[in-house]
Amino acid sequence: MNDDVLDPEPSTVPAGFTPLNWRRGFGQVMGTLYERAEADGGFTRAFLVEERHTNGMKNCHGGMLMAFADMVFGHSVSLLRRDHHWITIRLLTDFIAPAALGDWVEGTSQIVGQHDDLYTTRGRIWVGDRTVLTGTGVFKFAMPRKAHG
Amino acid sequence: MNDDVLDPEPSTVPAGFTPLNWRRGFGQVMGTLYERAEADGGFTRAFLVEERHTNGMKNCHGGMLMAFADMVFGHSVSLLRRDHHWITIRLLTDFIAPAALGDWVEGTSQIVGQHDDLYTTRGRIWVGDRTVLTGTGVFKFAMPRKAHG
Repeated sequence: MNDDVLDPEPSTVPAGFTPLNWRRGFGQVMGTLYERAEADGGFTRAFLVEERHTNGMKNCHGGMLMAFADMVFGHSVSLLRRDHHWITIRLLTDFIAPAALGDWVEGTSQIVGQHDDLYTTRGRIWVGDRTVLTGTGVFKFAMPRKAHG
Repeated sequence: MNDDVLDPEPSTVPAGFTPLNWRRGFGQVMGTLYERAEADGGFTRAFLVEERHTNGMKNCHGGMLMAFADMVFGHSVSLLRRDHHWITIRLLTDFIAPAALGDWVEGTSQIVGQHDDLYTTRGRIWVGDRTVLTGTGVFKFAMPRKAHG
């Protein structure tokens, strides 16, 4: 199902980004996300706003931006323990500006707090020099990931 | 594309729910949402957690729940002016319990405040008697909808 989301990467992908080939579940349904490791030890995740990500105004649907925010804000925590799943406890998203069809959307996050087993991160999503969304998330680790293969 | 999301309604759909046949954009990608008008003038929106909505733990992906929350929390505002699009300004989602593969997930919302052109709603998402997610949203109206035809 949804084989169309496994298309080859579009020509608009900036240098250094590689696709996250999630081949099942909601990660696949959302479409191709991309990731780049940054020199400062951080990361950038990204996607191209395709027709299927849009709302009736041909902007990226708020639901897609929130789902992307979840995968961006939580990834800082994921990097601490790659062998465990994490779950979202709370997410706050402030929508600053729209992302339009054809926009290349990027985002990153940082861990800003830890209390017991709860990690708080702060994140930002942007297109070029335009901030699209900011917010915070609270996450915790869940069960170990199954080894792939 | 994604014709699989227009499958006939599953046999598990409770009485009174009709599918929202969104045939384009992210509404289609998310899969079939259902809606029922309630006797008190409110509404319930719902979906069945399918394989393609899941995360690596076979629960409904947090991103899918947030996208659903957007469409549930904002719908209270939408009902005020069906001829206008609305946009999300802020969304806060608290994840209380997971929704599992095969669960029938329902949600509703109410308007709890208005200030100038900003509407605040409060919403809840549940499976049976288990609360899955609660939160609040801030929304405003955008451009008029194009007439379908």
